[in-house]
Amino acid sequence: MANDIKTLNLAVIPGDGIGKEVTPVAQAVLEKASEGVINFNYTNFELGAERYLRDGSSLPDEELEEIKKQDAILLGAVGDPRIKAGILERGLLLKLRFALDQYINLRPTKLYKGVTSPLANPGDIDFVVVREGTEGLYCGAGGAVRVGTPNEVATEVSINTAYGVERVVRYAFELAMKRRKHVTLVHKKNVLVNAGDMWQRIVDKVGEEYPEVTHDYLHIDATTIFLVSNPSRFDVILTDNLFGDIITDEAGAVVGGVGYSASGCINASNEYPSMFEPIHGSAPDIAGKGIANPTAAVLSTAMLLRHFGYDDIAARIDAAVEADIEELGSTQRTTKQVGDDILARL
Amino acid sequence: MANDIKTLNLAVIPGDGIGKEVTPVAQAVLEKASEGVINFNYTNFELGAERYLRDGSSLPDEELEEIKKQDAILLGAVGDPRIKAGILERGLLLKLRFALDQYINLRPTKLYKGVTSPLANPGDIDFVVVREGTEGLYCGAGGAVRVGTPNEVATEVSINTAYGVERVVRYAFELAMKRRKHVTLVHKKNVLVNAGDMWQRIVDKVGEEYPEVTHDYLHIDATTIFLVSNPSRFDVILTDNLFGDIITDEAGAVVGGVGYSASGCINASNEYPSMFEPIHGSAPDIAGKGIANPTAAVLSTAMLLRHFGYDDIAARIDAAVEADIEELGSTQRTTKQVGDDILARL
Ligand SMILES: CC(C)[C@H](C(=O)O)[C@@H](O)C(=O)O
Ligand SMILES: CC(C)[C@H](C(=O)O)[C@@H](O)C(=O)O
Repeated sequence: MANDIKTLNLAVIPGDGIGKEVTPVAQAVLEKASEGVINFNYTNFELGAERYLRDGSSLPDEELEEIKKQDAILLGAVGDPRIKAGILERGLLLKLRFALDQYINLRPTKLYKGVTSPLANPGDIDFVVVREGTEGLYCGAGGAVRVGTPNEVATEVSINTAYGVERVVRYAFELAMKRRKHVTLVHKKNVLVNAGDMWQRIVDKVGEEYPEVTHDYLHIDATTIFLVSNPSRFDVILTDNLFGDIITDEAGAVVGGVGYSASGCINASNEYPSMFEPIHGSAPDIAGKGIANPTAAVLSTAMLLRHFGYDDIAARIDAAVEADIEELGSTQRTTKQVGDDILARL
Repeated sequence: MANDIKTLNLAVIPGDGIGKEVTPVAQAVLEKASEGVINFNYTNFELGAERYLRDGSSLPDEELEEIKKQDAILLGAVGDPRIKAGILERGLLLKLRFALDQYINLRPTKLYKGVTSPLANPGDIDFVVVREGTEGLYCGAGGAVRVGTPNEVATEVSINTAYGVERVVRYAFELAMKRRKHVTLVHKKNVLVNAGDMWQRIVDKVGEEYPEVTHDYLHIDATTIFLVSNPSRFDVILTDNLFGDIITDEAGAVVGGVGYSASGCINASNEYPSMFEPIHGSAPDIAGKGIANPTAAVLSTAMLLRHFGYDDIAARIDAAVEADIEELGSTQRTTKQVGDDILARL
């Protein structure tokens, strides 16, 4: 019944490098999997390095307003060695996360059958990192005086609010209820005592509302050890913006490379569109060769579908990807070939 | 000739848990290796959890003044689960590092023959992390308002100065000259643009004075990947206080556990005593059983000797430890047994 078909308006930002190569594959999978249930209405945004080099804009206000009208965003990757570090990150990627109040940065980590972990005895690895997305050291607070002189002083300020922390803590406990019911708070509360103490108190308080969920605490430094020595111990890792950035990359490495890791920047109260992206970057070294692995981008579409409640379609994409990796993950394939192989399984 | 014998006055802070068990072993090795060359004059300081629980003091000013008169400090480990996170760390360990201006936190990382790495294909791992020790997020700058209310705001401030950065950058390049001549700056300059930009500029400037030393840059998140996927790429890693804390623990895990990693908190201009300690903590879970591995504590004495120019004695300790690990590293031994085995090789 055609009138049962739902329409989702998606902003598509392929971005730079391999972002442009993997995004169309992700869209093709999204469409095929959703056939007869969802129609996608795409609006493409040419944002990223080329645009910036051409006209100096990273994310003009009018385009941000257009993006706000969409239901969600599919992002490829952003970054180019010709542009000074920080400009596109803060002007585009972080600007989206902050302007759209994407306070949950969700990063599932799973060791798929067929993928070789660099660990000798990886065990079962299946956890989710719930990273705060709109606070901490990512606020852009800080400054510098006497730049370039021997008396230069540069500061970076981490801003943390009970409001911002409590909403991500609640999200993590809710998520744990659907999983193995364990939350690990990661921080550095023995040094960052102001922020760390607040995180711990809020976790303790919210935790009381979830008696079935156990929770523990690890320092960020100890966490980097456990990710290597015993990654199976984790179910839901809950952490701040910077620590989340760091451990999800290590986690990606442990499960065989960030090529299999997707990420959602989620506004869980649905006031603004959420954004779905692979964890990997624009990979200038392999860009243009058609060999980038589109798996993480494809997995990000399953996260998008789950965000809108299409758990069954998402599960079909996940299953197709899992089967593809298990059977063909160790073979050399082009971007297109991987896409075709996944499409054929749907 | 007895009058050629040099005397070194050492402050000894065994601290808590296994710190008390490994420190005497380290002292025994230090003495035997230095026999006929150096006499050690120890002053013991009862600082740590028991002292704090007894009289509430972590590091009284008078004791700090006594410590300042010593030539160096041997520290075991500090920390106890009965004491709230942050109190002993900031009141004792970090107070020492800051009051004694120990701006170089030196952490060699080596995969010894006979140690099993958790990595399937570790390759040769032999690098040194040069971590800044007196700035960044460890300053204790920051605060909180409306604590315990829904309107709480907590900040942490990272303070970075050209003065503080330049001296550690120079140290790293000097060290690289004695090694494989490569420095990797680790930061997060695409987000922490003020501090990151300053670090990069100072590295570029100082690097020009060392044309034989190559240098590159990695984000902290990418670094956690390379530590797992290709740790052999590193020679000297240069980084700030927090990032150094994080990657040295991951590095310790990759070379088979922090039980083999020593650390020097060094005032390289020799205005104040430097401090040598194992990287591991007080390990309350195994404390009192006499089974803690004293290897890292022993290795920290070799760092102490090198600091005073006794490279030959230090090399003998390192060689004894290496031989011990290669031959017996995989056997179950008590703390005392490992100490005796190392002593027997000197
Ligand atoms: C590109 C960068 C700003 C970003 C971050 O630090 O969050 C990236 O590393 C990520 O993890 O999505
Ligand atoms: C105990 C703690 C304050 C300390 C640090 O964070 O520096 C420790 O983790 C270390 O690495 O020496």
